[in-house]
Order: sequence, then C-alpha cells, then structure tokens
Amino acid sequence: MTVNAFDFAPSGRARIVQFHDPQIEMAHGAGGKATRRLIDTLLAPLMLANHGEPLGDAALVDIGRQHIAMTADAFVVRPLTFAGGSIGTLAVHGTMNDLAVSAAVPRALLVTLVLEAGLPGSVLEAEVRAMGEAARQAGVTIVGGDTKVVEHGKADGMYITTAGVGVPDPRARLSPSTVRPGDRILLSGPIGDHGITVLLARGQVTFDADLRSDTRSVWPLVDGLLDAAGAGVRWMRDPTRGGVATALKELAQDTGLAIVLQEEHVPIRDEVRGVCEILGLDPLHIANEGQFLAVLAPEYADRACQALRATPGGEAAALVGEVRDSPAGVVVAYSNYGTSRAVDMLVGDPLPRIC
Amino acid sequence: MTVNAFDFAPSGRARIVQFHDPQIEMAHGAGGKATRRLIDTLLAPLMLANHGEPLGDAALVDIGRQHIAMTADAFVVRPLTFAGGSIGTLAVHGTMNDLAVSAAVPRALLVTLVLEAGLPGSVLEAEVRAMGEAARQAGVTIVGGDTKVVEHGKADGMYITTAGVGVPDPRARLSPSTVRPGDRILLSGPIGDHGITVLLARGQVTFDADLRSDTRSVWPLVDGLLDAAGAGVRWMRDPTRGGVATALKELAQDTGLAIVLQEEHVPIRDEVRGVCEILGLDPLHIANEGQFLAVLAPEYADRACQALRATPGGEAAALVGEVRDSPAGVVVAYSNYGTSRAVDMLVGDPLPRIC
Repeated sequence: MTVNAFDFAPSGRARIVQFHDPQIEMAHGAGGKATRRLIDTLLAPLMLANHGEPLGDAALVDIGRQHIAMTADAFVVRPLTFAGGSIGTLAVHGTMNDLAVSAAVPRALLVTLVLEAGLPGSVLEAEVRAMGEAARQAGVTIVGGDTKVVEHGKADGMYITTAGVGVPDPRARLSPSTVRPGDRILLSGPIGDHGITVLLARGQVTFDADLRSDTRSVWPLVDGLLDAAGAGVRWMRDPTRGGVATALKELAQDTGLAIVLQEEHVPIRDEVRGVCEILGLDPLHIANEGQFLAVLAPEYADRACQALRATPGGEAAALVGEVRDSPAGVVVAYSNYGTSRAVDMLVGDPLPRIC
Repeated sequence: MTVNAFDFAPSGRARIVQFHDPQIEMAHGAGGKATRRLIDTLLAPLMLANHGEPLGDAALVDIGRQHIAMTADAFVVRPLTFAGGSIGTLAVHGTMNDLAVSAAVPRALLVTLVLEAGLPGSVLEAEVRAMGEAARQAGVTIVGGDTKVVEHGKADGMYITTAGVGVPDPRARLSPSTVRPGDRILLSGPIGDHGITVLLARGQVTFDADLRSDTRSVWPLVDGLLDAAGAGVRWMRDPTRGGVATALKELAQDTGLAIVLQEEHVPIRDEVRGVCEILGLDPLHIANEGQFLAVLAPEYADRACQALRATPGGEAAALVGEVRDSPAGVVVAYSNYGTSRAVDMLVGDPLPRIC
C-alpha cells in the first residue's frame, strides 16, 4: 500500500506540525498507528498541496486534458526472495495494486534502485528479470528509472522504489464519503500469506508450512468486480502493511462509521492461523500483497462476490462484514462463538521489513 | 538526472543480458561509464518495454488522451545538508529538472522516504519542510508518497526517491535525432558548484571557499529559452552525476556526431577550479544540480543565449561549443592556448554519493 498522505489528512487541518516523536522507530514504517501519526502530523501538513482531502492509495491529478492516478512505494523487504516472490515482484505488483484499488488501470511504471556495493551481479539480474516479467505478465510497461549505489552495509542488497501512473476507470467512482451504513465488506481471498511467508523465510521461526506469498497483480480481479458491480463499489484498499485490521480501522475513522467483521467468514489458511497462534499475532494485522477489500452498496454485494469467485484467483472471495452507523470509528470482530472484540490498527512492528 | 534507461538503449538491440560485472561497485551509481554499462546491458534489456528508443531524462507516455512525461530519481547524498541545500531540496529540484530538460512542465511529485531507525525527528522535519517549500516555490504539487523504516546503521539517515509527472510543452520537440553538425551548445551557468560544495561539506578537504550548491529548479530558465527559441532547441540535459563531460559524450555517442567545446567559454568559479586542481578532478566531470545544456540550431543560438542571460539566474549562460560531423562519438575540448584534449565519460567514482 502506498501510505498516500492524502489518506490520513483530516479535512481542514492547518499546516501545523504536531509530530513530537524524538526519533524515528521501526514502527513508523510498519503501516499502523505510528505511520499514521507520522503522515498526519508531519508529512501531510508540510508537503501536501491538497492537505485535507481524503483519497485512496493513489493520488488523482489533472495533467493536461487527462485525469490520472499516481502512486509510489518503497520496498525494503528482507530477505530479498521468499516462497512465491521476491522484492522485484513485490515492487511491480505493489504499485500496480495501489492503482488497481484506486480503480485506475495501471499503465506505466518507473523503477529506482538503491543498490549496496558488493551486491552480486547475479542477484541484481534475478530481480531485474523478475520485475520485467511481472510487468509483462501484468500488461504494464516499465518506462524508465534511476540507479544509485551506496557503500557495503548500507542497503541490505537493494531497496526498490516504484512509481506508477494509471487511467481512472469510468466504471467506478470511489470515495470514503460515499460509504453508508448497511454497505457490505468484500475480501478477495485468504489473508496473511505474504507476511507469514516472509517471516518463515527469515528462518527465525521453524514451522513446517507450505505457504507462499500472495504477491500478484489484483487488477484482473478488480476488473472483474468493476464489470459486475462497478456502480456499487464505494471504496477499495489493498491491506498490505498493518493488514485488514488497519485498513478497516482507517476506513472507520475516515468515515466516522463502524465496521463489523464476522471472523468466521474471513478466509485464512490453517498454516497462517497456526503460525499466528504460536507467535501471538493477529492474522488481521498481517500484511497481504495480492488481496483487496471493497465496500459495496448492499444491493450489489452478492453479485460482486459471485463475480470475484468466478474470476481466476478470486475463488476464495467472501463477504466478511458490514458498515454500521455506530460506534463511530470502531471496528468490531464477532467470532463464531458469539464473542466480540474491538480491532485496532497495528501498534509497534512485530514483523518489520515485510515489504 | 534520471538515468532513464531509454537514454542508453541503442536501437534494435535484443533482450540479451551482457552484464558480466561480478558485483555492484560504487561506480555503477556514479553516472559514468559503469552506470551506462549497467543500464545498457542489464536494466534496459530486461525491463524496458520500448527498449531501443533513445529518449531524454524523462519518459514520454500516452495516458488516456494525454501525452505525459514521467521521471524518477533516487537521492542518497552524504551529508544530508550542505551549503545552499539539502537532500530534500535536491530531491524536489532534481526530478523537476529532469522534466524541465525534457521540455515538460512539471506538475506533480510523489515522495518516498526510506528512513533509518534513530533518525532524529527534527532532522526529518527539516527535510520534509525543505521539500514542501521547494515544491511550493517551484509551483509543483506533492500529491503523495510512501515511507519505510530500516534498522539503525542502514540508509544514512534517509534516502529519498521522487517521481514526477509533467505535461510536454508544445514550444519544443526534442530528440537527439534532430541534432545536426553546426548546431551550438548552450550552457546555463557555472559548473561544478554542487559537487564541490558537497565534497567540502564532508570535511575531508579543507579549502576556504565560499561555495554553495546550485540546486534549483531550472524550469524558469527553460521556460525563457523556449519562449525565445523553442523551435530551435534540439536537445537538453541537466549535467548532474558525471557532469558536462558525460552528458556531452552520451550525446556524441547517441548521435554519432562530434562535440567541440571551447573550454575558456565554460563558466567555472575560481573556487571550483581551485579545488579541482588540488584534487586532480576535471570540472567537466563534477555534478551540477541547477544547470542545463541545450543544443540549438545555429540560427537560434545567439537569441537563445541572450534570452537566458536576461532571465534571473541565467546571467552567466554561455555558448560553449558546437556540433561537428566528425570524429564520430567524440568530445574534444579546446583550451585558450590552442591545445586540445579528448573528453570522456566519468570513469570510477571520485565523488561518491553526490546526489
């Protein structure tokens, strides 16, 4: 997810810096509460021209005669490769997905590399090849970029930043301001695969699980959804850092509405659930790189879910909750046993450098 | 400068990887020969959709009904601040300038930050403020971005990547393919200020010089040039990493023509010349962050130079050389004393991490 500063800029706030954290901590990059505070109290007030307008994962800008969507993401994942993907595939898919969930058809990408001196040429070649192939498979063109090199020890092999431009799709008009009580929450597939796969790839936890990152372009799924129910899609988000919990909590706060989740409807693989139980992690906080959430007008919800399930890669899509009018700004998860719990944004950074 | 891979992709080359360097060295990021080899033999063949089309510092892409210019740059300068600027001002100006020398009006920027855990909040605030102010001064809007945090000891405080989008200016149509023998070379002002200022800021060389980085948006100068002589401008480039020498050598190679420089016409401050003499550096290899080179049809050259000199900040503009038909691919510099020397691209990395 691009933590696009627009997301986090409450309307009408003045250009006053209220960021008082004495220093940057890992949590400021985890996509949860600290990231939001950093953006909301420092980055947005000082940098953003349209500070105050809530928007999605991509910014919408008029360039000449065309409305375009723009987004950028930095990738610092460790290790560079893991089951199902690598930093290169993440970098292409992540930026494409930010455009896709903004209902923009991805068109062109820029790739910048910060390389560590001493990086084997073969490792660089593998990642460059992965980016080229991911882009070609997903039908987006890489048009340029930049390369810098820093001393050995300074960049864990490589950091990649991708920037993407897309064309807004006329089938959808998304805005959190259109979300209403009674709207339904659609999730495209099983959660947590990416975060837990990267955790296991680090070798710090031993768990015999056949897991792969879900890194992929979600555009084909979004395309199918917009075909079936475009007029009923109010909001989309890809729940990357901070997971489903953080994405929905932000939606609740941005809209001043409540979100109710039915936990038994949230698709989670047994392996992900197992690792989370052992480590005391909430699957709702784990990063995904190939899923998205959508808010649907209730009359469109069933057909939207059926359309996603009929699209290759969307077979596990599910309606997982709904929007209510209160308690304002709160996400509540109901379990199969009738118990409920408040779901908050990610606090701290239990899985650093996940993307 | 965006080392936009388009620049370095000779026409018709197949998607064959010929990058055999066993590992990445600092020189691969220096903007000279090793950077060109990296892009030409690895990045372009594997990633670029339009591999084979030489273009400028920005890529030109059709998005919906609009032709747009896109560019991205990573900044890893050490130290973060120096006389006349900082990593934040560089990041805004550098990407704007890549658009400007592509004759595109800069419109919107994305800013991604890779921050080091432990970075003082005050240092981050200063750079974010610098970016916001640089953008407002230059009339471009920052519309979003992303933030990641890496462990203490990585990333030297911060790395910044900026991506920019602009609208091609109808007053110019640039292409190296339009450059002809007899064309004149225009330089916007004194060279080497940025590179030498950063070198002195590191404290490794003691030299009593009142120097400041030239970091600035060159758009007002380009705008004045296009007003006065737009139809006569064939090519522009901002000579950042690798300096004027590398930019002109690339032009010579891309066009198969020769460039002749009159060294006594190249504006250089005494302080820059002095430091270069002491350290054995060629001022033509030193990075600039607020200058540009233009190739002009001969009948437009004088009025173009006069227009630049009449624009605030362009007072030192000079016609510094011309294009000849041979020797093909060569840049020759003539001194005041009638001697001549071949000028090559930067080799190695005498001033690492300059931008």
